[in-house]
Amino acid sequence: MITAFVFDAYGTLYDVQSVAELVERTFPGHGDYITQLWRLKQLEYSWLRSLGGDYADFWTVTRESLSYTLGTLGITPDESLFAEIAGAYNALRPYPDAESCLAGLTGFRRAIFSNGSPEMLSAMVGNSSLAPHLEAVISVDAKQVYKPDPRSYRMVEEALGVRPSEVLFVSSNGFDVCGAKRAGFKVARIERVSNASLAHELASSATIGPKIFYKAQRLQPETYGEVADYTVSALGQLPDLIRSISHAP
Amino acid sequence: MITAFVFDAYGTLYDVQSVAELVERTFPGHGDYITQLWRLKQLEYSWLRSLGGDYADFWTVTRESLSYTLGTLGITPDESLFAEIAGAYNALRPYPDAESCLAGLTGFRRAIFSNGSPEMLSAMVGNSSLAPHLEAVISVDAKQVYKPDPRSYRMVEEALGVRPSEVLFVSSNGFDVCGAKRAGFKVARIERVSNASLAHELASSATIGPKIFYKAQRLQPETYGEVADYTVSALGQLPDLIRSISHAP
Repeated sequence: MITAFVFDAYGTLYDVQSVAELVERTFPGHGDYITQLWRLKQLEYSWLRSLGGDYADFWTVTRESLSYTLGTLGITPDESLFAEIAGAYNALRPYPDAESCLAGLTGFRRAIFSNGSPEMLSAMVGNSSLAPHLEAVISVDAKQVYKPDPRSYRMVEEALGVRPSEVLFVSSNGFDVCGAKRAGFKVARIERVSNASLAHELASSATIGPKIFYKAQRLQPETYGEVADYTVSALGQLPDLIRSISHAP
Repeated sequence: MITAFVFDAYGTLYDVQSVAELVERTFPGHGDYITQLWRLKQLEYSWLRSLGGDYADFWTVTRESLSYTLGTLGITPDESLFAEIAGAYNALRPYPDAESCLAGLTGFRRAIFSNGSPEMLSAMVGNSSLAPHLEAVISVDAKQVYKPDPRSYRMVEEALGVRPSEVLFVSSNGFDVCGAKRAGFKVARIERVSNASLAHELASSATIGPKIFYKAQRLQPETYGEVADYTVSALGQLPDLIRSISHAP
């Protein structure tokens, strides 16, 4: 029986695309390109550092990936501008239905489990409307391994004192879906872009720019691992989903 | 003293872009998109499987990433067509200067160290002009971990019986440069796209399509780890490089 909802943060409860406004204002014409490449390299660096046995926290990874991204354009901003842009990751906007989703799950335990460093998560969650609905914000940092390392997911059991089979883990990130399934959780995937709409967008676009390419690279179900138990197109559907699961014969 | 040259295969001696012709012929208008996304997901899946403790060989990873890529377009080819396209990775073309580079390094031990499965490497190298110049083709497969896992690089010492400090490791892949440096090798980076030319291309392109985006995502020096000892713009410069190193005071 599901007793706890555990949410991924970046891209699931909080919209990583919300850095684009500041980035575009700062580097006109490059906002979309920088936003997509930054996020891709941020994830990549978390994986590569973990694989290399060379963990550094997500704030380091976020700045290193920003530095790489700006570097491709030959841009090296001064320290204070760099800090301002990097800081956008600590002020991501929740998805519009994130708060009502959490409110609709009252009665269940609700927590975040994220790659973010404790300081990043504290800034982002603490300053958002989601904080009152969350019992715990769990960071991989205490174990110094990033998702989808199996050791990371065990922190959820340890922090909440629940068995994996009691957890409905929620993520829009394919690698996180695979990792959470392997860890024994039930998993709900948030399908922000359906396969049909992506295929249509790819077929009908004269050129495939950074944002479509990002969607293609990141937002389809991964084919190397396990698949989600449930797929919904938005967070707002989770309260209905859990009711239908609970009432299933 | 350098006694051995050890080369990465995919993207370093062999051009991963050489699958584009077959892919474009098979899926007109999508050749470039598929080529870039396929390679990006292929690397990603090697890392994610390694991180997840869920190794499968590079042939599996190559097919899974192709399946993901075609899936974004809503394409599910029949088995024989799928096999034909996947097989393109076993017939990659060497870079034009790869053979003369290897020939120019006669007197040094020369080997490949690659993520490729033994069967893939045997097909690709065996069918190319590079085979006679190589003493060994070492695959990560025996250890079931992908680069940049530090355990993988130790296979070079074990296979060739050399100390890391005697090895000049050659790669165009940034993560491989970082991993090889951490393993104690001297490292030469092949800079296929300079920062200045990439920045110029990004600034002067009306839209940033998949190929430019691929270059931006993969072909600049990574900023999360160590840097190469030497950077050259092409394989053909390695014989001169080693002469200049050997004669340095």
